[in-house]
Amino acid sequence: MADSVVSFNNPVFASYAAYAGLASMKMMGMTLVTVYHRLTKGVFMNPEDTSFGPKDKTVVRTDHPVIERVRRLHRNDLENIPPFLVVGFLYVLTKPSSDVAVWHFRAFLASRLLHTACYLGGLQPWRAVFFFAGFATTVSMAVQVVAKGSL
Amino acid sequence: MADSVVSFNNPVFASYAAYAGLASMKMMGMTLVTVYHRLTKGVFMNPEDTSFGPKDKTVVRTDHPVIERVRRLHRNDLENIPPFLVVGFLYVLTKPSSDVAVWHFRAFLASRLLHTACYLGGLQPWRAVFFFAGFATTVSMAVQVVAKGSL
Amino acid sequence: MADSVVSFNNPVFASYAAYAGLASMKMMGMTLVTVYHRLTKGVFMNPEDTSFGPKDKTVVRTDHPVIERVRRLHRNDLENIPPFLVVGFLYVLTKPSSDVAVWHFRAFLASRLLHTACYLGGLQPWRAVFFFAGFATTVSMAVQVVAKGSL
Repeated sequence: MADSVVSFNNPVFASYAAYAGLASMKMMGMTLVTVYHRLTKGVFMNPEDTSFGPKDKTVVRTDHPVIERVRRLHRNDLENIPPFLVVGFLYVLTKPSSDVAVWHFRAFLASRLLHTACYLGGLQPWRAVFFFAGFATTVSMAVQVVAKGSL
Repeated sequence: MADSVVSFNNPVFASYAAYAGLASMKMMGMTLVTVYHRLTKGVFMNPEDTSFGPKDKTVVRTDHPVIERVRRLHRNDLENIPPFLVVGFLYVLTKPSSDVAVWHFRAFLASRLLHTACYLGGLQPWRAVFFFAGFATTVSMAVQVVAKGSL
Repeated sequence: MADSVVSFNNPVFASYAAYAGLASMKMMGMTLVTVYHRLTKGVFMNPEDTSFGPKDKTVVRTDHPVIERVRRLHRNDLENIPPFLVVGFLYVLTKPSSDVAVWHFRAFLASRLLHTACYLGGLQPWRAVFFFAGFATTVSMAVQVVAKGSL
């Protein structure tokens, strides 16, 4: 009779799943940005990788400013997106109002995309603003999950 | 009739959800510790961040001992808490005894909190002890998940 | 009547759970490789850890080539395995054909194990090949999740 909460028939779950999939791909996409810069700049972390770079112009170093910027951004994703993925799922199980839930997911993904643009462009204080917007979204859901759970 | 396993009506799931939410917030909280130290010490990783520090006393460096300690601890969380979040959920699906399950979750969170205190305080061998306690808790659940699954 | 999709009675879920548990343990196992090298080589990141090394031969440094290689590999796991864990679960909810699904899980784990061997052995272009095989597996599942979800 009643559809399961954990099902694409539940609109809140279907929304969570779409945003979770996009956030996962966004995070993984940072690898492609790093690979692009490594190949075009000939800057690698492992000696055996240097054969991929422009001939006679490759180097092993871990302090290239553009590449390390991408890696710092990627690490920031690692710190924030996996918690969102799990907490968002548990939040769906608390059966939140559909509108409120969907806006949580939208706010998180939008914040992370804007955070990415600001990090790559070196834009402060906007990077901080969008970081904390995404952070607050996940904390908001986590608080509701903990409140509904039992210790 | 029977409540779904994946529901806050299942006491084991409700317990998992509460500890998963707390562990997620604990991990994300490391960012706030890093931000606190960066703002008070004026030590940043990006040139555009220096406007946030104390006037005329900010610097871009990635080797401040206190800040790098917090970042090493944060990375250790990244290595251990996301696996717990997913494995813990799958473990709930194996329908473990309620008492055993809840103590797994409590042992994990307590271990990680004590690990954090010991890392910040530089206390060995206690940091190693609490690290391996949390590690063993996750492995214990993962083994039960794999045993119940099919390859 | 009908078994829940999120249940070990669902063969696709049981397969996902087994591979998710193994992938989690594989990722966590990288810590043990790091610890092994630190203890035998006496190379640590924190001053208080040096008491664990061979007497009179320990040092605090963060640029040992073997240990940093293991840590780069571990970080690559952090970038790829948590997204697989979550996306794989959501993919199960899309009710894929059992054969196709199980081969996604097998391809991912096999790719990551071969990637690990190639990273430790410094084998290119094989490391890149297996990296992108695992990457493509997760993206394939994520695309199907997003397509079934709603924005």
